[in-house]
Amino acid sequence: MCELLGMSANVPTDICFSFAGLMRRGGETGPHQDGWGISFFEDGKGVREFKDSGASCNSELAKFVKHYPIKSHVVLSHIRQANSGKVSLANTHPFSREMWGFPWVYVHNGQLKGIKKKPLQSYLPIGTTDSEYALCYLMGKLKEQFPSYPKSTSKLFRTIFDLFTEINEMGVFNVLLSDSKYLYCYCSTKLFWIRRSAPFGEAVLKDDDIRINFVDETTPNDVVSVIATQPLTENETWNQMAPGEMLVFKLGEVIKRYNP
Amino acid sequence: MCELLGMSANVPTDICFSFAGLMRRGGETGPHQDGWGISFFEDGKGVREFKDSGASCNSELAKFVKHYPIKSHVVLSHIRQANSGKVSLANTHPFSREMWGFPWVYVHNGQLKGIKKKPLQSYLPIGTTDSEYALCYLMGKLKEQFPSYPKSTSKLFRTIFDLFTEINEMGVFNVLLSDSKYLYCYCSTKLFWIRRSAPFGEAVLKDDDIRINFVDETTPNDVVSVIATQPLTENETWNQMAPGEMLVFKLGEVIKRYNP
Repeated sequence: MCELLGMSANVPTDICFSFAGLMRRGGETGPHQDGWGISFFEDGKGVREFKDSGASCNSELAKFVKHYPIKSHVVLSHIRQANSGKVSLANTHPFSREMWGFPWVYVHNGQLKGIKKKPLQSYLPIGTTDSEYALCYLMGKLKEQFPSYPKSTSKLFRTIFDLFTEINEMGVFNVLLSDSKYLYCYCSTKLFWIRRSAPFGEAVLKDDDIRINFVDETTPNDVVSVIATQPLTENETWNQMAPGEMLVFKLGEVIKRYNP
Repeated sequence: MCELLGMSANVPTDICFSFAGLMRRGGETGPHQDGWGISFFEDGKGVREFKDSGASCNSELAKFVKHYPIKSHVVLSHIRQANSGKVSLANTHPFSREMWGFPWVYVHNGQLKGIKKKPLQSYLPIGTTDSEYALCYLMGKLKEQFPSYPKSTSKLFRTIFDLFTEINEMGVFNVLLSDSKYLYCYCSTKLFWIRRSAPFGEAVLKDDDIRINFVDETTPNDVVSVIATQPLTENETWNQMAPGEMLVFKLGEVIKRYNP
């Protein structure tokens, strides 16, 4: 099983603290040795991506990212335990494609049986994972339905939710997806989230001997939500998503919730 | 004016030496302060990209990349002096898109007047540069002509050359483009290249007090070609491309040459 990490914030925020916890699980406190990746949305539609096909706990690049405070309003990250597709950079999440002039970035946890029988249009996978194939299928369907960015966000959200639900029927499909404006989180089996805002307190990482006092790192108006496969801290209460549920985050807040 | 750097090699090779020279030009020995980026093709179709919208000479990330020997068979890099599009991550080269299941990556030096009047299909720009617009135009045209990867590479090469030539009529279009298999280099005004193979000698960077003895870094069968806006070393003879010329590199060798 792979692990996912996402963040949505109303001010550009660095994710060093949560990323430190996640990276330990990549071959050290967890078995995910087959690559890791992280994408930061910055300055609107800019995306910066780091990935490695080796174990994150040994990665020089992961060490660099852990200490390099990139300020971002949306972050998606993934550590991989390969099950579909060999271990290689082309098979390492996040996967991304441009649609409607926006960068769509995605990470997936789970396996999908028979997904590769679904016909594709507009987008083709570069690697051999079922995850990237599922993204190409989803985006091809979206582009078919909406030739340009839909004016009605509720129609867009509903279509994405329906596609997530359809793909989820083929296996396990825990997913984080963002186009820079929204962060879509779909829970197939396991996804937790937490919303942090003032008054900020101290948090203690489960996977590492690290504490942070968010008061020192934030301003009173900051809202930061973090989404992860498992709670990353031990002294906070995380919300567990229900199977089949989708949350849409914007600027740190849940703005829409879909239930099966 | 921006600066370009490319590499094609028959064995995965690191570009630390050449990159060190290029990065000095980003705000130190040169005026290119408005961002830099580099893409490494690894392990077939895997791509790793690093970019920053600040000056490369001050960039922590550039320092990291300079000392992190990523072994690659194709590399493309760019440092930017903004002329079209504001300074931001979304406007920072390289730009990339998936086509036919391959990652197409591109860097451009020059300005193109009126390019944004050309109609686009399949691909839309995410940022506001004329460079990214030109890539979207080029790829839309390619995809229109070839629904899947063409079996005839000479048809593909010729079509790319014709599109480069067409776009070049709108201004200055020095370009490096790769889909992982081939590296296309088009000279509008200024592009130099050098092929290094055994017997390897010593090279001295123009922009930095750095020497390298390639004998220590290579095996006798290595072939490495480097392409740049200006020669990067002072004690080697670089080949200057002719305006309107396109070279296609594969595994370090020029496999095809097109002249206007």
